[in-house]
Amino acid sequence: MRVALLAGGTGGAKLAAGLQEELGAGLTVIANTADDIETLGVHVSPDPDLVGYWLSGEIDEERGWGLRDDTFTVMQRMADLGAPNWFSLSDRDLAACLYRAEFMRAGGRQTDAQAQITRGLGIEARVLPMADEPVRTKVITDHGRRELQEYLILDGGQPDVLGVELEGIEAAAPTSEVADAFRTADLIIVGPSNPVISIGPILAVPGMREALGAAVAPVVAVSPYVGGEIVKGPTNKFMAALGRPGTAAGVASLYARLIDAMVVDEADPDAPPTEIPTLATPTLMDGAAGRVRLARTVLDYGETLIDA
Amino acid sequence: MRVALLAGGTGGAKLAAGLQEELGAGLTVIANTADDIETLGVHVSPDPDLVGYWLSGEIDEERGWGLRDDTFTVMQRMADLGAPNWFSLSDRDLAACLYRAEFMRAGGRQTDAQAQITRGLGIEARVLPMADEPVRTKVITDHGRRELQEYLILDGGQPDVLGVELEGIEAAAPTSEVADAFRTADLIIVGPSNPVISIGPILAVPGMREALGAAVAPVVAVSPYVGGEIVKGPTNKFMAALGRPGTAAGVASLYARLIDAMVVDEADPDAPPTEIPTLATPTLMDGAAGRVRLARTVLDYGETLIDA
Repeated sequence: MRVALLAGGTGGAKLAAGLQEELGAGLTVIANTADDIETLGVHVSPDPDLVGYWLSGEIDEERGWGLRDDTFTVMQRMADLGAPNWFSLSDRDLAACLYRAEFMRAGGRQTDAQAQITRGLGIEARVLPMADEPVRTKVITDHGRRELQEYLILDGGQPDVLGVELEGIEAAAPTSEVADAFRTADLIIVGPSNPVISIGPILAVPGMREALGAAVAPVVAVSPYVGGEIVKGPTNKFMAALGRPGTAAGVASLYARLIDAMVVDEADPDAPPTEIPTLATPTLMDGAAGRVRLARTVLDYGETLIDA
Repeated sequence: MRVALLAGGTGGAKLAAGLQEELGAGLTVIANTADDIETLGVHVSPDPDLVGYWLSGEIDEERGWGLRDDTFTVMQRMADLGAPNWFSLSDRDLAACLYRAEFMRAGGRQTDAQAQITRGLGIEARVLPMADEPVRTKVITDHGRRELQEYLILDGGQPDVLGVELEGIEAAAPTSEVADAFRTADLIIVGPSNPVISIGPILAVPGMREALGAAVAPVVAVSPYVGGEIVKGPTNKFMAALGRPGTAAGVASLYARLIDAMVVDEADPDAPPTEIPTLATPTLMDGAAGRVRLARTVLDYGETLIDA
């Protein structure tokens, strides 16, 4: 079975890890790159790398991000030399970001840099940046216009969000690898990531919705709401900025005309989306077993949609 | 007493450490940057950084280069991802090279990047790149034209040297800081570094010999030959390429009309230079005491030249 998964941060990355257990090289992850930031001479690509670290098994599971047992020698030293240190990268994480920066400065595509990184980590699945062109999320808050990482780290995700801008989005396009992944997929899954700043930029790439719409595979979304709450991150502030309720139905409204069905948490107190079929199941991915269980459930549900 | 020291690799850097013990902030080191190499997304500046690590006390003294007790996490990881790994940098060393690269990509001068690094390491003396323009030493061997670092590392300094080219030298100029250091110095010392590839590029910068000649301070060179031998590195191959004998007299011939006197090793079997005054003394810098002893000897000898 060939599956294309749209993913951003932790939720999507954990589901990717579960799906890889089931599918191996049959899994292709299309990852948001609008969180990317060029800083300290390196090209940080938080979502593709986070997905990669979950897939390689190197993730610090307890923390939910970053590499297990990594050191911060280089960034600490750079801070000693006077470099800004609000954005920290551990050493092995930095290595990938430095490798990517140099690869791209030499004229290489981000898709090829990520493929090289993914291969280097011994990962079976593929991780595709959503586009090779730079797209950068800006967050409009009552404190002003912020880079996404500034908002999340410096502001702690606290200020209310008035709106989101995707700088560079007009010039972006799905890569041929992304288009191929949709065309050849048996099932397309929208992961349980932030619908506005993780999945939103992927869908906003000109031609992306068309490429998804042209795919023969059914599209099923997994709601990021578990028991009515977001496990991690300021999703509700972004939902509110778009005038949507912080519920599975609110998420489904953002994916209208795009998804064929949705997997929601069975403990969700809010009413599920009514315009599409839904499957209610426990969606909390607790440990490796929890990730595989949800992956298997979504795949089984997807198979019923393929047959339909 | 204000001293300007021209320095390249280990010999000059060790003398710098000894001089700093005696002079503190009175020492300014003018360091060769023709060994610099841009690789793996960072700007490596071997001689200025080597000088810095000897001055900060972080040098691995036993090895003679590199930072004591440093790790290689980032470069190892980059190699895992497929990056070339013939040129290795330890993590804290890499941090300075990454900081420098980003500083200069943002439009900063190499002089200011190095000043920031030097300050960050808590160093009393100043370390000045010889110029802000890129100069790169190319080595012509019977195996072809090589980058200097390729020759030293990949070729192990083994092939005979037919000649040396200094790419970019025509566009280089002494910085105002270097010119000031010469103008305000009480004594100028040419360190015991490779006269061809370490001191040679400094002197080849257009205007450098004129700036030195205009200084009121006497110029004394320290021979790199100890007991007739070079302590470290393929100096004799480079001397031969320029048709000079591998002796203190050969070195003095390269500095003709530039130096007023020379310090040579008292155990040197070869005849000392005859055209300038010389002081014979033990020049092997064995440990901190040996570095300070030679520094003190050179300073005392220099003072006799100032008074003369």
